[in-house]
Amino acid sequence: MSLPTRKIAIFGGGTVGGGIVEIIGKKQDYFKELTGHGIEVVKICVRDANKKRDFNIPAGCVVTTDYDDILDDDSIDLIVEVMGGTTDAKDVVMKALSKGKDVVTANKALIARDLPQIEAKLKDCPGVEFRYEAAVCGGIPIIRSMQSDFPGDDIEMISGIINGCTNYMLTSMDKGGKSYDEALSDASDLGYAEADPTLDVGGFDARSKLRILMRLAYGIDVDEEQIACKGITDLSKLDFQYAKMMGGTIKLVGVAKKVGGDSVAAFVSPCYITSDDSLASVNGATNAVEVISSNLMASTYIGQGAGRYPTANSCVNDIVALAKGDKSPMPFNPAETSKKFVNNYESVFYIRIKYNDGLGITRQCGEICEKHGVSIHSILQNPVTKQDDNAFVLITEKVSLESVEKVAKDLGELNWCNGPTFIMPVLREDWVQAMAD
Amino acid sequence: MSLPTRKIAIFGGGTVGGGIVEIIGKKQDYFKELTGHGIEVVKICVRDANKKRDFNIPAGCVVTTDYDDILDDDSIDLIVEVMGGTTDAKDVVMKALSKGKDVVTANKALIARDLPQIEAKLKDCPGVEFRYEAAVCGGIPIIRSMQSDFPGDDIEMISGIINGCTNYMLTSMDKGGKSYDEALSDASDLGYAEADPTLDVGGFDARSKLRILMRLAYGIDVDEEQIACKGITDLSKLDFQYAKMMGGTIKLVGVAKKVGGDSVAAFVSPCYITSDDSLASVNGATNAVEVISSNLMASTYIGQGAGRYPTANSCVNDIVALAKGDKSPMPFNPAETSKKFVNNYESVFYIRIKYNDGLGITRQCGEICEKHGVSIHSILQNPVTKQDDNAFVLITEKVSLESVEKVAKDLGELNWCNGPTFIMPVLREDWVQAMAD
Repeated sequence: MSLPTRKIAIFGGGTVGGGIVEIIGKKQDYFKELTGHGIEVVKICVRDANKKRDFNIPAGCVVTTDYDDILDDDSIDLIVEVMGGTTDAKDVVMKALSKGKDVVTANKALIARDLPQIEAKLKDCPGVEFRYEAAVCGGIPIIRSMQSDFPGDDIEMISGIINGCTNYMLTSMDKGGKSYDEALSDASDLGYAEADPTLDVGGFDARSKLRILMRLAYGIDVDEEQIACKGITDLSKLDFQYAKMMGGTIKLVGVAKKVGGDSVAAFVSPCYITSDDSLASVNGATNAVEVISSNLMASTYIGQGAGRYPTANSCVNDIVALAKGDKSPMPFNPAETSKKFVNNYESVFYIRIKYNDGLGITRQCGEICEKHGVSIHSILQNPVTKQDDNAFVLITEKVSLESVEKVAKDLGELNWCNGPTFIMPVLREDWVQAMAD
Repeated sequence: MSLPTRKIAIFGGGTVGGGIVEIIGKKQDYFKELTGHGIEVVKICVRDANKKRDFNIPAGCVVTTDYDDILDDDSIDLIVEVMGGTTDAKDVVMKALSKGKDVVTANKALIARDLPQIEAKLKDCPGVEFRYEAAVCGGIPIIRSMQSDFPGDDIEMISGIINGCTNYMLTSMDKGGKSYDEALSDASDLGYAEADPTLDVGGFDARSKLRILMRLAYGIDVDEEQIACKGITDLSKLDFQYAKMMGGTIKLVGVAKKVGGDSVAAFVSPCYITSDDSLASVNGATNAVEVISSNLMASTYIGQGAGRYPTANSCVNDIVALAKGDKSPMPFNPAETSKKFVNNYESVFYIRIKYNDGLGITRQCGEICEKHGVSIHSILQNPVTKQDDNAFVLITEKVSLESVEKVAKDLGELNWCNGPTFIMPVLREDWVQAMAD
């Protein structure tokens, strides 16, 4: 075939950019057979043109520090944005689209913040394509799956382990018996945690991704700040002991689910999950997304959430799909735009309460739960080993988050209560119940 | 948009055909928004036009019993083959392609037998598309994933739980403590097993699917008969007890992997898998495929392998993709055609030996293993509870299948050996070792 070569420029010559250059270099003959087009990286824009790169610049490829060298070059018809950040990245993406260039990006922050604006822009750029597979869960093809596996389906619930740093930490607390601080320090040493790990351990990175997934699953745009977000900072070894006692483990999960009518609830929180859940064996920095839907029932995608080659591979898949001429379905889920976001949901909850010895503890717990309409399913208590680590756990029946938060607040005000109580949902317990009904 | 309506005909008005009609009926407005085309089922070909259907025939849709009513109708530009069987199905598919109609099929038997011939045919039908997502693992988008996630990657190994009936049985033997016969009878009651379950329990259904996956992953066409195939009929409760003792479980897995140079080995066999393996928590009739590759490392896809809506959903996704104008990458993996199939591989093996009490058993085991160059990693033995159930298990170091089969044969000829010895590989042990090196 003699189709024209797709001339590509990459913004960003770092980890991911280098991976893309390497993969294209290695597979260019095959890509040509597959798509009919040669695929050639002709320009790379970097901050410092003199910096030594850990990959070979292809013969004939120009390294520049000037965005316009690429944006004004009409021979380039596809740009890959892997420079990170949101200010310049957004400018570059918007200008490239205006100039009729297809865009592939791996920039989660940009997508989480500006996808609606980018999609609006695309309406004025007929025939121009925009792809962002690598922006959520690196190597897991979750964007394409959400767009291609579910058009005829109705998504009930998405639950995902979508932050590698915290999953590494929780695995190491669970399997390795590490403390929170030890686990964080290990994650930093391995490069999984940022210098300021707040975005990871606070659940905020997971929340950004959840918001993108919600847009794909339900066609709704939620202000990120509205999504309840609890990180892993309040988890202790104790909680893993209780989880083990209950036969499962704890994972930081982003959840979005239909809650009757046209409402969708969502949260990021540590969750208790049973050991036979697909998410339970997702360990280390691995990511996973499970989708519950009417047709497909349960579908799980497990893979690498970050890293040079997994992320670069997703960018390359976007490039190949565009070279092959595939059109992106966009806007996705237009029929679903009537969905409403609500900040409440029902679940079985785990409430862990630390206490100092005293009289009337059981009675007061019972009274407070009764007052807020919270039925107690069971009370668990490990043998007390250290006097300052006294704790017990209430497992509730299926109740609303709102009511269980009131219980936690009231318990926290009692004088035998030693520090704030810790609440987390029991994942899918409610779904299992619903199926059994 | 005012693109022409895609007029579809379905061959087969059974479980899957009905599901497709239902989904298209429910989502037609959305599909039109998404693809620009109306999608309309205009004819359905069935064996008995008078049979009562469990779905509503769309208004204006013609029910026929004559293939040519559809094949000769030039207004129909896409046919869906969900009639099953291979003789008529192949005729219908080949004629439809000749007539320039796109084809979507869910027919595993047809694909396993005739995909090479269908792909050859497609070369003479420019612009005509052929899709078969539902033919392997029903609701899991594994065909599309193999075609779209890995063009820039190199697949090292595929391992899949790709037969729902046997996975249901093994789960029920493991978790429910059922015997083989009880498990098979339950599977039949639930409709997971065929009247003659040989294709399932013998591993042959899994082998057909593995062959299709090998074509996608490595571009090689293997005569199915050449792929070593061991079903689950020789497994006993005993093996699950040993697996539990070792901390894992047993699954029937189809495996294909690179074994140095350009060679690919493949087999279907029960495998011991550790409890932290993604496949270990895949229970009941659920299917799963794990792909190990250079870029993406480990990717796992878990979902429903069969059933009305999962299978219909996959067919509908193919239809929507074609309406959207996506081109199938075909032939896939042309660069890989130099791969050679070899019927041998190295692994850690589990050898279970039933015995009658006697002198010199350990010595003779040792001698036979030594003779064939098989290193023993460990010997396991449960407390003997019933005299006729005496058994012990040898776990080998990483050795070749060939040598371990010689050991099994020699052991079987000794007079204290009570019935044939049972061999299965320890899945991924070799891969884990390779990563650790």
